[in-house]
Amino acid sequence: MKPYSELTIEELTTLYQELKQQYKKAQALDLNLNMSRGKPSIAQLDLSMGMMDVLNSDSDLRCEDGTDCRNYGVLDGIPEALQLMSDMMEVPKDHLIIYGNSSLNVMYDQISRSYSHGVMGNPPWCKLDKVKFLCVVPGYDRHFGITEYFGIENVPVPMLPTGPDMDLVEKLVSEDETIKGIWCVPKYSNPTGNSYSDETVMRMARLEPAAKDFRIYWDNAYTVHHLYDLDQDRVVEILQECKRAGNPDLVYKFASTSKISFPGSGIAALAASLNNLEDIRRQLKVQTIGHDKVNQLRHVRFFGDIHGMVEHMKKHADILRPKFEAVEEIFAQELDGLGIATWTKPKGGYFISFDTMEGCAKAVVSKCAKAGVVLTPAGATWPGGKDPHDSNIRVAPSFPPLEDLKTATKVLALSTKLVAVKKLLDEATAEAAEKKTAETAE
Amino acid sequence: MKPYSELTIEELTTLYQELKQQYKKAQALDLNLNMSRGKPSIAQLDLSMGMMDVLNSDSDLRCEDGTDCRNYGVLDGIPEALQLMSDMMEVPKDHLIIYGNSSLNVMYDQISRSYSHGVMGNPPWCKLDKVKFLCVVPGYDRHFGITEYFGIENVPVPMLPTGPDMDLVEKLVSEDETIKGIWCVPKYSNPTGNSYSDETVMRMARLEPAAKDFRIYWDNAYTVHHLYDLDQDRVVEILQECKRAGNPDLVYKFASTSKISFPGSGIAALAASLNNLEDIRRQLKVQTIGHDKVNQLRHVRFFGDIHGMVEHMKKHADILRPKFEAVEEIFAQELDGLGIATWTKPKGGYFISFDTMEGCAKAVVSKCAKAGVVLTPAGATWPGGKDPHDSNIRVAPSFPPLEDLKTATKVLALSTKLVAVKKLLDEATAEAAEKKTAETAE
Repeated sequence: MKPYSELTIEELTTLYQELKQQYKKAQALDLNLNMSRGKPSIAQLDLSMGMMDVLNSDSDLRCEDGTDCRNYGVLDGIPEALQLMSDMMEVPKDHLIIYGNSSLNVMYDQISRSYSHGVMGNPPWCKLDKVKFLCVVPGYDRHFGITEYFGIENVPVPMLPTGPDMDLVEKLVSEDETIKGIWCVPKYSNPTGNSYSDETVMRMARLEPAAKDFRIYWDNAYTVHHLYDLDQDRVVEILQECKRAGNPDLVYKFASTSKISFPGSGIAALAASLNNLEDIRRQLKVQTIGHDKVNQLRHVRFFGDIHGMVEHMKKHADILRPKFEAVEEIFAQELDGLGIATWTKPKGGYFISFDTMEGCAKAVVSKCAKAGVVLTPAGATWPGGKDPHDSNIRVAPSFPPLEDLKTATKVLALSTKLVAVKKLLDEATAEAAEKKTAETAE
Repeated sequence: MKPYSELTIEELTTLYQELKQQYKKAQALDLNLNMSRGKPSIAQLDLSMGMMDVLNSDSDLRCEDGTDCRNYGVLDGIPEALQLMSDMMEVPKDHLIIYGNSSLNVMYDQISRSYSHGVMGNPPWCKLDKVKFLCVVPGYDRHFGITEYFGIENVPVPMLPTGPDMDLVEKLVSEDETIKGIWCVPKYSNPTGNSYSDETVMRMARLEPAAKDFRIYWDNAYTVHHLYDLDQDRVVEILQECKRAGNPDLVYKFASTSKISFPGSGIAALAASLNNLEDIRRQLKVQTIGHDKVNQLRHVRFFGDIHGMVEHMKKHADILRPKFEAVEEIFAQELDGLGIATWTKPKGGYFISFDTMEGCAKAVVSKCAKAGVVLTPAGATWPGGKDPHDSNIRVAPSFPPLEDLKTATKVLALSTKLVAVKKLLDEATAEAAEKKTAETAE
């Protein structure tokens, strides 16, 4: 098929009628499908059901240093859980604190603490007139939501195939001391699915921020979430790189087992320099006596160690991989060569980033909704939910069963074509009318 | 035995030598006992081990409305857990949010949110020059620690046998709009163990605060934690009473299962008016996608319902009651009639409040420590850790096995006598010397 932009008005008109017919047929299927959030599927959740058996009423719930995990105490996490998360996050275990069930909550608390008490002796952000954050776009809506909630101005920075536009990041961060942080998903990024290049990470670690309390918020959400056994992205370890670069305090690194064991019932962790951790513990010991140690123990007893976790992640991959491939295959079949959409081909993570022609994303998401397919709202990948190009859509293939996913993806492709043709037809018609008016006037 | 204050210098001297000998013997036992924190004992923790069996790999982890508890979502808590906590906290379930593993964390977050964003449209506390909190004393050190961390001035208010001194509370709260809250443990209070009278609660609900964003922080930590089957304290339900009094938004009520199931691995909850909950949810949905639903389900499947929980609490009581009685018996045997100490006789909760003569508490705690018995630091029950009378000691009988507890209590009684006699002897000697000087001068 030719690119749509090369079609004549007549061809476009015919195509539009055809697509409308197809869309009506799709609507008649009365679908109720959801590709909106990065939720593991039921089959994936079933993979971790063994975790319900590793502790029973005969179990010894003391951890390896003898602490009774059933009672109060232990602010940092039990030793064996620190070891597991250390291996998963590629940081030494004395640079870690294990938290509760949600890394989002850890990030929120980090911003909240910086707002109320400041970072390592710097003024609390609530005492400043202006605080800004860099947001790599397209990016994760819940990140942007946290900073927005604290009245922080979210400043978009484009995501390139190599990661954030580092020329721009370096310039902004070095010039503007109101910029206090940058939200990053360095590996299998949400939603593009690509990973930061070695050079990007090395330049990140060598940033020279105007603000002493600038920190990189490194959300390592998909660190072991590969789709393939060998063809995997690797990202330079940022804590170590910051240390090598003489900027040991520059980064907070976050991760959780939400998409490894059970979302909402996993364990989360934060890694940072010893100075940062000392700063954090001053607050943490006021906030809580300790996190859920029984659940930490449950995770360790289930996975055993990092090798067990890696094997476990292969099972996740076996379920996820066909879904990603199916989406990409349908996109290729339906949209390749039409010049109306582009999409990413991630090797891991939970998302595919899909770009329509400018000004079409909202209309596409709306068309899908009216055919019973719920997508993440268009614009969600931009701060404030406002995509200036109205082109980006986050596709989350994980939750629906494979056949449903295929159906939903076909609806998305069809809606994309329908909206694109309508737009091109309107433009061509308007252009023709203009031309005619011009000719008449001559 | 006569009150110590009626002893002659000679009698005091003899007694002091005797007590010193006894103390040396106690030191020679090389004890290592801890009565410092309100931790359940191992026998109590064993009561909940059945909780490890209620979920296994064959379990259906959908809650009663069909939600898969293993996946993301559900901000307020699953319906059956809301029902259980509703029955436990004596509030309607639509007035509840279930949180993670720690009610202390819920209280911290409540203060933190008020500090950064204000309460129901009122100015954030971080924008105010001065914020004060009322602290019922003696009280819970971790409460005071939270407000202190946020630079809030903690203002002590005396605990009477009926609860806080309500004359003073009413006066302060109605006159001073910088007072934004009061920390309360209304039932089996920490550390006195007594409960607020009906009149106290009714007056609380009818406070007329100068500050629109004043809230009562009602930490219902020991709501089902009775020692006796029938001889139980009952406290008027504060949410309902505030509603009746026309002040529905006046209170936040907190509770958790920390001392019911496992401390650190239980579930916590907050109850408040619908207006307050709406205000709270605006923040909560930014902070997290949801709390640990699998653990909520585990609790409900273990306890069944409130009746199961009540039966469970009787087992706790059977372990705790002999400990409280042993401490009180030793205090009575060793200290009754000496005029050097008073103590409370709670019907529930986790603490006994012990008062030495003025200016003796620190010395007593230090003596105990040097004989291998660790107590909560003297002063801990006052804001800033500073008891102006230096008399209050919080005794936590729950953790040590019964025989150890008896030994530790005897060391405490002995140390109390030793410090009291030394003080009286020093005073009497000084007085005698003064008298002699006065006589010589005549």
